[in-house]
Amino acid sequence: MTPTITAFKNSPDRGRGLARDMRVRWALEEVGQPYEVRLVSFAAMKEPAHLALHPFGQIPTYEEGGLALFESGSIVLHLAQTRAGLLPDDANARARAITWLFAALNTVEPPLVERGMAAIMERDKPWFEQRLPMLDARVHKTLGELSRRLGDAEWLDGAFSAGDLMMIGVLFRSKPLGMLGDYPNIAAYVARGEARPAFQRAFDAQLAVFNSHQPAG
Amino acid sequence: MTPTITAFKNSPDRGRGLARDMRVRWALEEVGQPYEVRLVSFAAMKEPAHLALHPFGQIPTYEEGGLALFESGSIVLHLAQTRAGLLPDDANARARAITWLFAALNTVEPPLVERGMAAIMERDKPWFEQRLPMLDARVHKTLGELSRRLGDAEWLDGAFSAGDLMMIGVLFRSKPLGMLGDYPNIAAYVARGEARPAFQRAFDAQLAVFNSHQPAG
Repeated sequence: MTPTITAFKNSPDRGRGLARDMRVRWALEEVGQPYEVRLVSFAAMKEPAHLALHPFGQIPTYEEGGLALFESGSIVLHLAQTRAGLLPDDANARARAITWLFAALNTVEPPLVERGMAAIMERDKPWFEQRLPMLDARVHKTLGELSRRLGDAEWLDGAFSAGDLMMIGVLFRSKPLGMLGDYPNIAAYVARGEARPAFQRAFDAQLAVFNSHQPAG
Repeated sequence: MTPTITAFKNSPDRGRGLARDMRVRWALEEVGQPYEVRLVSFAAMKEPAHLALHPFGQIPTYEEGGLALFESGSIVLHLAQTRAGLLPDDANARARAITWLFAALNTVEPPLVERGMAAIMERDKPWFEQRLPMLDARVHKTLGELSRRLGDAEWLDGAFSAGDLMMIGVLFRSKPLGMLGDYPNIAAYVARGEARPAFQRAFDAQLAVFNSHQPAG
């Protein structure tokens, strides 16, 4: 049974890999799992058929036989736990890799999203410039701690894992903020992730969706 | 090997169960796993010994033999996957329960934390009142979607699971915001969680830490 994921029909990122289906596509490519994609419009995301799959009306979702999942973290973890390639064999090392997956989503991503959302939703507000130092400080605190732990290691804990995939997915998504430049080891870590063939295949696949919806030149 | 978790020596919540060790204690109680607690001061959380356990200098952490984990989501998932009581036997139902654990942490908690942090960090700022409707709207959007999915079910997907534990842990932590009252089915769901003997034991244990550090009356 080939799994099916959902992705934006018209992604606001213009195919730059910033939508959350990118992480799931990357995980599918890493484990060598072929997949189908069903594109959904913003209107369709709020309709009952999609809400039955995703109660919060977002993408991505994941369907495989009788199983339906949502949340990119849960989908990536499911792929990592049911296919070879994204978790080490040793039980303790597996648990540590999963800890990094949670750290990416629950510790590193929130200040990046809050900073990014403010720039989108509140840029024209009189308080935007005044709040910026506080938001930037939260991002830098987290990135500084991550940078210190990463050091000059290739990946976060031994071999490349689902923890690295999610951490790099989160950091890649925040590149437009321009805040990774202060952390050369983090920038190099993200670049190592982007250089993986599986990342490139996933990126190309989601970019192709965007290009296929552009009027012929 | 009895696992050891870390918790605040002086919790800012005065023992009201709002610190993130509460979720881990609750999970330990649900699976019947005895545990030790090492209390850490705010100063000790930033020292090398603790940073080696938790690169972001937070609590809780989890140590068991040679294994060291951080992130409450990862610790609860580890307990659920290695002990009986927090995940169903059926593989698909397990994956769905884990999806709810991620939804609690990645979709439901962020707008609640952002609203709560604003009230703590920006209450005296001239823009606080102006931003409040936007922050409240984000919370209500998410709680409305959760309420619609929950309906009149006892738990989110069949029997009580790690997904419910984390969702209720997140919602319980946001009770001081006073925003659950608009959703009677969510309030009743949280109350069902609080009524579980394992929740009560966990709550009492963390309250006892606070009380033991108060000057004798």
